[in-house]
Amino acid sequence: MIGQGILTVLSGPSGVGKGTVAKALQEKTKDMVCSISATTRLPRKGEVNGSSYYFLSTDEFHRKVDRQEFLEWAQIYGNFYGTLRLPVERALSGGKDVLLEIDVQGGLQVKQKFPEAVLIFLLPPNQDELESRLTKRASESEADIRKRLNWAEEEFEYLMHYDYAVVNDWVDEVVSKIQSIMVAEKCRTWRLK
Amino acid sequence: MIGQGILTVLSGPSGVGKGTVAKALQEKTKDMVCSISATTRLPRKGEVNGSSYYFLSTDEFHRKVDRQEFLEWAQIYGNFYGTLRLPVERALSGGKDVLLEIDVQGGLQVKQKFPEAVLIFLLPPNQDELESRLTKRASESEADIRKRLNWAEEEFEYLMHYDYAVVNDWVDEVVSKIQSIMVAEKCRTWRLK
Repeated sequence: MIGQGILTVLSGPSGVGKGTVAKALQEKTKDMVCSISATTRLPRKGEVNGSSYYFLSTDEFHRKVDRQEFLEWAQIYGNFYGTLRLPVERALSGGKDVLLEIDVQGGLQVKQKFPEAVLIFLLPPNQDELESRLTKRASESEADIRKRLNWAEEEFEYLMHYDYAVVNDWVDEVVSKIQSIMVAEKCRTWRLK
Repeated sequence: MIGQGILTVLSGPSGVGKGTVAKALQEKTKDMVCSISATTRLPRKGEVNGSSYYFLSTDEFHRKVDRQEFLEWAQIYGNFYGTLRLPVERALSGGKDVLLEIDVQGGLQVKQKFPEAVLIFLLPPNQDELESRLTKRASESEADIRKRLNWAEEEFEYLMHYDYAVVNDWVDEVVSKIQSIMVAEKCRTWRLK
């Protein structure tokens, strides 16, 4: 396992700021790549195929599911999301650390298939903060936001299945903590085997 | 457990540089104290009672063992070494992190009594480096050094019972890694309970 990259999963309630943290982390961390998810949902304004997501038709997605090409996948808010297995495994074997910014269902699927993965749960400073962040996301209707907030509460129940919890107060502070977690994980004796 | 300091054990073969690392770590880490061991061995040149060690007579040491005043204790090279429980528990309750620089036998005793303790094993860059460091320690005879080196090999067998392993190449690098480990451990979800 020595020389192999570490697979880190970053999850947390919608609106908690996973995307911002993942972006900042990637910019500041050498030899780390963010996995690009595949999804059947429509692109939001500014999202680019192959960069933000791989945008797939529902048919294409299901074909890849059938061929077991996904490391994890789930249906959320009526759309499918998943992580393609091959690019992740290639990066890890090449000594790169890989960050997956995925929901908790996906995170737990990854942990089952890759027990050596590191699961980090991003917590909002408080519930008001989370509502405010979601409300500022202009692309979603109020009904969508409500649906997301209810789901956020459910997501907290998954917290204890994660290895680490980091409160997203300051992005720089969160990035520094996640970098510390990655340094620490590389020193774990069971990874020497 | 929130607000409680973390108990970190630093162990490794004799001559690996635990003392230097512990000193540098204490200087650079806010809210961390090094526990002072008690011992029945004679002071080396420059060692001060109550600062380097608590130097106890064998009788005094055994009385404290009988009163269960030790968190861990062991006999090594004919002398007794131990960590008094009370000052460690006081510091942890006060939110201070406590560093114990102790041998592997002691480390495993601590882990049994404090499963939440973090055990770090300091590894020499290589065996030659370890011999060279011990040989430079002028206060010991060659026979003492041989005895210590044999024991060092045995100590490696304990490695896998430790949580983390850090190679002592550069002190600054080691200190930074141990600080990362402490940051990471404070984010572990099971410590939220």
